[in-house]
Amino acid sequence: MTGRDGGAALVADPGSPVIVLVRPQLADNIGAVARCMANGGLFHLRLVAPRDGWPQERAWRTASGADRILDAAAVHATVADAVADLHRVYATCPRPRHIIKPVLTARAAAADLRGAAARDLRCGILFGPERAGLDNDDMAQADTWVRYPLNPDFDSLNLAQAVMVMAYEWWTAADTTPPRQLLTHKTEVASKAELEGFLVHLVDQLDACGFLRNAPKRAGMVRNVRHLFQRGEVTQQELRTLHGIVAGLALGRRRLGRLEEEFPNPAL
Amino acid sequence: MTGRDGGAALVADPGSPVIVLVRPQLADNIGAVARCMANGGLFHLRLVAPRDGWPQERAWRTASGADRILDAAAVHATVADAVADLHRVYATCPRPRHIIKPVLTARAAAADLRGAAARDLRCGILFGPERAGLDNDDMAQADTWVRYPLNPDFDSLNLAQAVMVMAYEWWTAADTTPPRQLLTHKTEVASKAELEGFLVHLVDQLDACGFLRNAPKRAGMVRNVRHLFQRGEVTQQELRTLHGIVAGLALGRRRLGRLEEEFPNPAL
Repeated sequence: MTGRDGGAALVADPGSPVIVLVRPQLADNIGAVARCMANGGLFHLRLVAPRDGWPQERAWRTASGADRILDAAAVHATVADAVADLHRVYATCPRPRHIIKPVLTARAAAADLRGAAARDLRCGILFGPERAGLDNDDMAQADTWVRYPLNPDFDSLNLAQAVMVMAYEWWTAADTTPPRQLLTHKTEVASKAELEGFLVHLVDQLDACGFLRNAPKRAGMVRNVRHLFQRGEVTQQELRTLHGIVAGLALGRRRLGRLEEEFPNPAL
Repeated sequence: MTGRDGGAALVADPGSPVIVLVRPQLADNIGAVARCMANGGLFHLRLVAPRDGWPQERAWRTASGADRILDAAAVHATVADAVADLHRVYATCPRPRHIIKPVLTARAAAADLRGAAARDLRCGILFGPERAGLDNDDMAQADTWVRYPLNPDFDSLNLAQAVMVMAYEWWTAADTTPPRQLLTHKTEVASKAELEGFLVHLVDQLDACGFLRNAPKRAGMVRNVRHLFQRGEVTQQELRTLHGIVAGLALGRRRLGRLEEEFPNPAL
């Protein structure tokens, strides 16, 4: 929980876009926005005419340690002031308006922002006030609109959630995490030979205990067992556990002697 | 703002995954989760042992109209109870633990969930309590883990934000919005012939006013003007405006007569 240290690890990536909150109303939301920004590796926060003034102590309480972002936040009187030093401005806008403008999904905007950062262009993203959103004059300050693909039957997005989606896409656009991994701790995925070693052990014991005594069905049953264990990646640790389980069950059977005869194998 | 109608438009997509909040602490967060779920087209909410009991009036206040999701939320005593009727369970887990388990990004998990829904498999996603997250016994109830790619230096994610990312990815996985559009209202992107018509008009007027009187530079200047207007898609409405601007400026010039001689063209 590295967020608990007052955000000491937060570093300002100079290429990351500026988040511009236009006339934000609630300090709680400004703090929540800072936390989302930290989650997605964003740092630069600007506030245009915050309703209740700035700074507001409540914001630091909801930032959960993203203090440095709030400490460094700049306040501007107008959107024009807030974007004056930027090269490209995006505006988030859930509702269509009667303006002609390029509209990107959040994902396409994040790709654009990464491309612009690589060219040393400073970018900003405008987010409107909680109730009304950006007005037409605000929107006219933007080169490009961003519209999230979300449920059109319920498109009222909390301010921090709106920033979260953009911060998440910004981070993800440069992330190289494989979409699917097998997380293993101090163990490795077993090779097919290691898996085969277990399957031979298992089938031996199933032969020994009589589970496979129905000769016409034996080949199919062995194949089904193979399919079961081939379904996913099995780790070496899991194979060791499975070897132990089979050995343990077989040992218990030998200890119980002929008792097993009383419990007929339901699979046959 | 369709979220303001009490969420009347919210419809339970039977194939959408169940959000399971395990031992949630704050009713505010449960309401915020419901709002995020509505944003992403999720409907089914289950609460495992909510700390302050259920229902809690505060949750409806922060749900911003996603009331139906809260009205339909089910309370369970244990995670095992909450997932008993499900076929596949995912668990969100920001921090690595010493367990062997497939780990997916949120995006890969969303693709999986859509695939499972298409096969009529009921899925659920576990989200842990605000402070501690899911414990080891909770995690053992899950087939698969989900880990969001986010800033490892600040991975403390608010509960509603965690649900927001998953809800957003769930919606996006089935969304067909083109990543880049030109939003036009009652107008169309101009054809190259329409653009050419404007460029001819413009160059004619630039010739008439003497802007292009430097013969050696004329071809290059015309080409630069062409490049400028070819840079992006221009709409028919914008072309009409541009025709009007050129005509207006030309008319003003004729009215001003020879006055223009006093203001030499800085481009030459």
